[in-house]
Amino acid sequence: MRGVSADRGTDYNRSLRAITFEVVAECPTTGARAGILHTPHGDVETPVFIPVGTQATVKGLTPRDLVEELDVRLLLANTYHLFLRPGHELIRSCGGLHGFMNWPRAILTDSGGFQVFSLSDLRKVTEAGVLFRSHLDGDEHLFTPESTVDVQMALASDIMMVLDECVGYPATHEAAREAMKRTTAWARAAFAHYRERRVEAPGAGALFPIVQGGMYADLRRECAGELIALEADGYAIGGLSVGEPRSLSLEMVEAVVPGLPRDRPRYAMGVGLPEELPEYVARGVDMMDCVLPSRNARNGCLFTSQGRVILKQARYRDDQGPVDPACGCYTCQNFSRAYLRHLFQAGEMLFATLATLHNLRRYLDIMRRIRHSILIGTYPQYVESVRSVPIPQE
Amino acid sequence: MRGVSADRGTDYNRSLRAITFEVVAECPTTGARAGILHTPHGDVETPVFIPVGTQATVKGLTPRDLVEELDVRLLLANTYHLFLRPGHELIRSCGGLHGFMNWPRAILTDSGGFQVFSLSDLRKVTEAGVLFRSHLDGDEHLFTPESTVDVQMALASDIMMVLDECVGYPATHEAAREAMKRTTAWARAAFAHYRERRVEAPGAGALFPIVQGGMYADLRRECAGELIALEADGYAIGGLSVGEPRSLSLEMVEAVVPGLPRDRPRYAMGVGLPEELPEYVARGVDMMDCVLPSRNARNGCLFTSQGRVILKQARYRDDQGPVDPACGCYTCQNFSRAYLRHLFQAGEMLFATLATLHNLRRYLDIMRRIRHSILIGTYPQYVESVRSVPIPQE
Repeated sequence: MRGVSADRGTDYNRSLRAITFEVVAECPTTGARAGILHTPHGDVETPVFIPVGTQATVKGLTPRDLVEELDVRLLLANTYHLFLRPGHELIRSCGGLHGFMNWPRAILTDSGGFQVFSLSDLRKVTEAGVLFRSHLDGDEHLFTPESTVDVQMALASDIMMVLDECVGYPATHEAAREAMKRTTAWARAAFAHYRERRVEAPGAGALFPIVQGGMYADLRRECAGELIALEADGYAIGGLSVGEPRSLSLEMVEAVVPGLPRDRPRYAMGVGLPEELPEYVARGVDMMDCVLPSRNARNGCLFTSQGRVILKQARYRDDQGPVDPACGCYTCQNFSRAYLRHLFQAGEMLFATLATLHNLRRYLDIMRRIRHSILIGTYPQYVESVRSVPIPQE
Repeated sequence: MRGVSADRGTDYNRSLRAITFEVVAECPTTGARAGILHTPHGDVETPVFIPVGTQATVKGLTPRDLVEELDVRLLLANTYHLFLRPGHELIRSCGGLHGFMNWPRAILTDSGGFQVFSLSDLRKVTEAGVLFRSHLDGDEHLFTPESTVDVQMALASDIMMVLDECVGYPATHEAAREAMKRTTAWARAAFAHYRERRVEAPGAGALFPIVQGGMYADLRRECAGELIALEADGYAIGGLSVGEPRSLSLEMVEAVVPGLPRDRPRYAMGVGLPEELPEYVARGVDMMDCVLPSRNARNGCLFTSQGRVILKQARYRDDQGPVDPACGCYTCQNFSRAYLRHLFQAGEMLFATLATLHNLRRYLDIMRRIRHSILIGTYPQYVESVRSVPIPQE
């Protein structure tokens, strides 16, 4: 399918792709690039941070908040959760995830592999796939490389992920190698099935393979080398944020990225902290997702231009200033730390809404600044400037 | 203060009032009237339903939702809760409730009497006031007629309530009479204090006395007769919705209203179901509040033009229609019953937001229809038409 033109592919090849990616600027010093992801549900500027809407909703926010307040272009939903409840066939009958949750823009789904992996006691991995028990009712289910593609096609996701096997941290080289090998075999099986199904469903979304290999650079490189033969529309780097030191996650990305095609988006799954976003981008990552901004928001931890604000602290009791004076979000423009602290202490739902709105805005603002500095050629200076800001600890 | 003009008072008198009320139309057949309540934070068209924001927030909604989506003009907040947490002095230092919660429109506060009454074991009533233990930390506090005025003035409420004593249902005539007598004495004490304080704080809100008397029409009439001597800006009818048959609540309103001044707003506290709203209005009530639309919303019960919709029911599992095809709210315009049922089953916060938005819109739409039919002179027909609609039971 590829190979006619080393960098972009021909127009013919591009028309076969479910999504296409355009690199519009590259940093001459770091590996950072700014691009545009063209999806059936609109364009997504990269680098992009993808908010997490596990059960077909970003906890506490309406789709209107996500579009009008945050201008989110790409949302993540979790296949494992939606497969169990309400079920992918129900979602298919409601017009896929876009129709079901009334989300007009692009959607990325994971394969459920990471969630099943985190069930530990309730799962059993075989060559065919992974057998697991539902955390909701204990019912047994089997995910195979093929079935997870089918489920995600029922969800009508714009960007789907292959089933992968994640190892924990620490893991032996042998265990990591075995999981990586299985991930690679599963990716091939998933793509064979996906290509067959696309004949009848040419509008289906893109499918990304996932690079695994634990915290071993050699395995990561080997995995990437195998997966590029699939000529996918994009590549994910999985198995990060499983308990390893954060420097190790960055090292793994460094090992993988040079082996991936320049003209396809690279997606680091499940990262990271606000101060880590520029580091991933500097290493050539285009897409990231993380539950931290929304989960920490609900727990009362807000990310600001001055570091973390832990709202339950007594010093904010009568603080009439906004969470972040430099922030333009609805929360910071309208409410004081004192009011937000009251809502948190009183267990009021409005707290989660206002805090999530702020934290996601913070992440998206960082990504906009990153993209802008890549476009105007000042990314190395940007990275230096944020690295030199001391991050207050919680 | 009054008496110069029997119906409206002179301009001089009006300028002394914290709020004023204009009757703009009256139903010639029933006791219904349409009016305008002029408050320091904007005009409120009556009859009005007042959404409940107990802890300085309507659970699940932003102030922006309340203004832009629902056009709420008057909001209720609970003195008992806010006194305990975050404390009225903190709220005073943040610019009163309007500043604290960033609510630009009118606010009504109760006195905390009803909440303290519902504590049962934790309270002790004396002539001076009511001693109670906080449900949060067990600390002892005393509410007096004077202190509850002071607390509500710190909250900078537009419409304050006097401390009252509520009896449960059933209650003996003797017990109801005693509580009514104490309520009347407390109202006099509250007004004496309020009038003193207003000399230094001429911008303070209005204070409404509360008619009590249990479920005894003679006591209700006696209480109203005593309270009109206070020449208040408005009158509340309390002690309803304490477990009595709903027909009895309406009978008590019928007993009280003829004894209240025609040119002052009448507020039935804590009522009612959607189908009861027209009944209260037909009996001369101008203002109502109730937790039902928001609480039932969170529990999955939605009020529609076709009756209740209990979303957890299996029949809505793949129902792609809106909650109420006749409703123009954000929820009905954008989401299916199937999606809402999924959110409810999955315990997602967004459910509470979307359901509350709908139920409040339903209540406010009913009030708008009521007001419109009074204005165009068709209220009796309106009441007949809604009475003849069978209400499906839950």
